[in-house]
Parts: sequence; C-alpha cells; structure tokens
Amino acid sequence: MVHRAEVALLLKGVPYEFIQEDLANKSELLLKHNPVHKKVPVLLHGDRPAVCESLVIVEYVDEAFDGPPLLPSDPFARASARFWARFVNEKVGKHMCWRSVWMALWTDGQVQASSARETAENLKLLEGQLPEGKRFFGGDTIGFLDIAMGGIARWLGVFEEMAGVRLLTEEDRPLLYKWVRDYKADDNVRQCLPERGRVLAELATRKDRYVSIAMRMAAKNS
Amino acid sequence: MVHRAEVALLLKGVPYEFIQEDLANKSELLLKHNPVHKKVPVLLHGDRPAVCESLVIVEYVDEAFDGPPLLPSDPFARASARFWARFVNEKVGKHMCWRSVWMALWTDGQVQASSARETAENLKLLEGQLPEGKRFFGGDTIGFLDIAMGGIARWLGVFEEMAGVRLLTEEDRPLLYKWVRDYKADDNVRQCLPERGRVLAELATRKDRYVSIAMRMAAKNS
Repeated sequence: MVHRAEVALLLKGVPYEFIQEDLANKSELLLKHNPVHKKVPVLLHGDRPAVCESLVIVEYVDEAFDGPPLLPSDPFARASARFWARFVNEKVGKHMCWRSVWMALWTDGQVQASSARETAENLKLLEGQLPEGKRFFGGDTIGFLDIAMGGIARWLGVFEEMAGVRLLTEEDRPLLYKWVRDYKADDNVRQCLPERGRVLAELATRKDRYVSIAMRMAAKNS
Repeated sequence: MVHRAEVALLLKGVPYEFIQEDLANKSELLLKHNPVHKKVPVLLHGDRPAVCESLVIVEYVDEAFDGPPLLPSDPFARASARFWARFVNEKVGKHMCWRSVWMALWTDGQVQASSARETAENLKLLEGQLPEGKRFFGGDTIGFLDIAMGGIARWLGVFEEMAGVRLLTEEDRPLLYKWVRDYKADDNVRQCLPERGRVLAELATRKDRYVSIAMRMAAKNS
C-alpha cells in the first residue's frame, strides 16, 4: 500500500516527490524498478536500486533516515510489531475484506457471514495489541504497526459502506474504533491517506475483478 | 520453517533447548504460545511472550543477542535481504515446489510444466542476488537471506527426487547450485538441517494433503 510508504516518509520528515502511477497502464519507470512484482509502492532514493514492498520500505525509511523512530528499540517489541504487521497483511488485508463484502452480493451470504466472523475475530486480536492507555500501537505516537494497519483505517469503512455490513463497531471494539479515528486525525496521515470518495469510486469500477478473487478464495478455503 | 530459527541461534552462538512438536497432535505448550497460527517454530526466551514466525524469529535473534550479525548493517542491503526473503516465502516456498512436483503425478502435467518454468525463473532471479565472488548471499558468511533460503537447500532436492523432475541444475544455475552445496556443508547448518531421508519419509506420508493443496492452488491461479 502506497499510503504506508508515504506516511513513513512524512513521519520521519523526509522530503519526497510523489509520482502517480497508472496501474492500468504501467510506466517504464515502474517496470524498470520493480520488475519482480510490478507493483507500487516503489521508493527511489538517490541512485541506489529501488526499494519495493510497502513494509520493507517502511523499515528502510526508519533505518536510512533520522527522525522519530517508527519501530520500537526493544528487540521483543520489534518482533511483536513485525509479527502483527504480517498478520495484517495475511489475515486482515484487502482480500479478507473483499470476501466479507462481495460474497454477500453474488452468493447466498454464507461465505460472507463466515468471513465477517473471521474478520471480527482478527480485529479483536489486533485490538488486544494496543498498549494499555495508549492511543497508538506504537504508544504515544504512530509506529510501524499503526502504519501497517493504515489501510484498514480507510478501506474498512469503505467496504462497510459498499456492502451494508458492519465489520468494526464502537460497541464491540471501542479501543480499535477510537484508534481508527485517532489515526485518521493525525496531521501526517491526513496528508496522504487516500480520500474516501476516491477509494469508493475506484472500488466501484473494479467490482467484477474483486468478485472473482473472492470466489476463488472461497473455493480455496472451502 | 524450524530450520531457520535453529540455524540463526547456532550462528549467533546462543545456547538453546529444542522441543520437538508433534504437529498431528499439537501440544498445550504450542497452542498456548502461538494461539494465532498454531505453527512451529516458536521461540521462548526467558519469561517474555513467545516470538513466532520463522523470519521474525531470525531478526529477533539477530537483534536480541550478541554474535556475528545476520542482517547486513547498510539500510539498503537490509531492505534488499528482506525483500528477497519475502520473495522466497511467497514465490519459491513449499507451495510452489509442491505444484512443480505433485501436479505431475495427478494431472496431465500441464500445470507442472508451467510451475516448473516459474520456479526456474525465480531461482534465476535469486541466483542474481549472490554478491559477485562470494559464496553466500550474506557475503563471506551465512546471513539473513541464506537462512530464508535454507529450506530450498533441503526441500528442492527431495522434491526433485520424488517427482523425477529437475528444478535446479549445475548447468543452468552453477552459482546457486554451488550455494546449495556450500550452505549444506556449513557446520552450523549441518547440525540442524533436517536429514534428507526423514524429509522424504515425511513427505511420502502426507502426499494426499499436498496434492489437494496443489490442486487448489492450480484452480486459484488458472
């Protein structure tokens, strides 16, 4: 997710130039610098080879530049942040949300119900990682795991709206609900979190592809 | 992969106790310390919560203990090692090999051929990451990416033997072929790389499960 790379740069105070990529018509620049995955984000820093993969970029930015640390200094806390960031990628990422949403529209709702339950369980586990009395997973400031979860702060609400389901409620997950609000209210986050309307419009134009992904995932997991 | 965690401890010179886990009958200890994924390896260090996920464990061991560094110190080289370790997990891991092998036995061989081609391409990309004139991805000594690839050093040969296919040859990939030999010859690696016969026997008893995974993956990617 591009947002992860961008917010890391903003939080560290690193000046950067943002080059918009049209994924329907990938540029030579993208294909040259990320020939393996052909995906954004890609970070170009000086004349060194590109850094690719959003979480790899966030760690790179943390290590290559001065500014407030994004990962904690304690090895155990670092391992924990990395563990849960992988968890977000694998279990609570876009695919999972797609299933929770799109399957409702094209199937009898069974897959949606079980996916929504799984997503709810996963959000509960994540909420449990918020340090007591702190606003962010990183403590008093936004850190690595907050950044890894940044997509959830935006996409989850959009998914809920499109499908008329609730995945995260203030009643069930008050701390995580508050985290979404606090994360989105951060000055750096606000500068680069995709605008809600734009995300909605983008999803709407790609419905068919998402449905086919959701169907295949359901088949794979059934 | 358990091997990754174990070789990291050996390379850093950290004494440890190995507790064998029966995955067909998971212990209370495993379920207690890795309730999220219920998988090995799990690292217990003092009375702190467990560290889970093999690559997270390797980074933890590197950061929490003295001894020779496993990750390079340069931020760009660190990012590169992390990028390619993820690549190994996602593209060249066991699943990919399963497809290259098992599909041949239960299908008409088409899926196997395309998977074998993909695996060959991925091994070529990995070979390109070996620093010129160095034996290991980590340079003169085994590092993070070598450890991430450790499974390949053992599993690839076993897969080849079981299915009668060649995925890595000295002729096509001389440097990577030599890397496998050098990696397996390392004193620390030899102490913990699963014995070839044991891996073969284990795979043989789990054929059916692997075939069904390979079939599902083929359906997902078709």
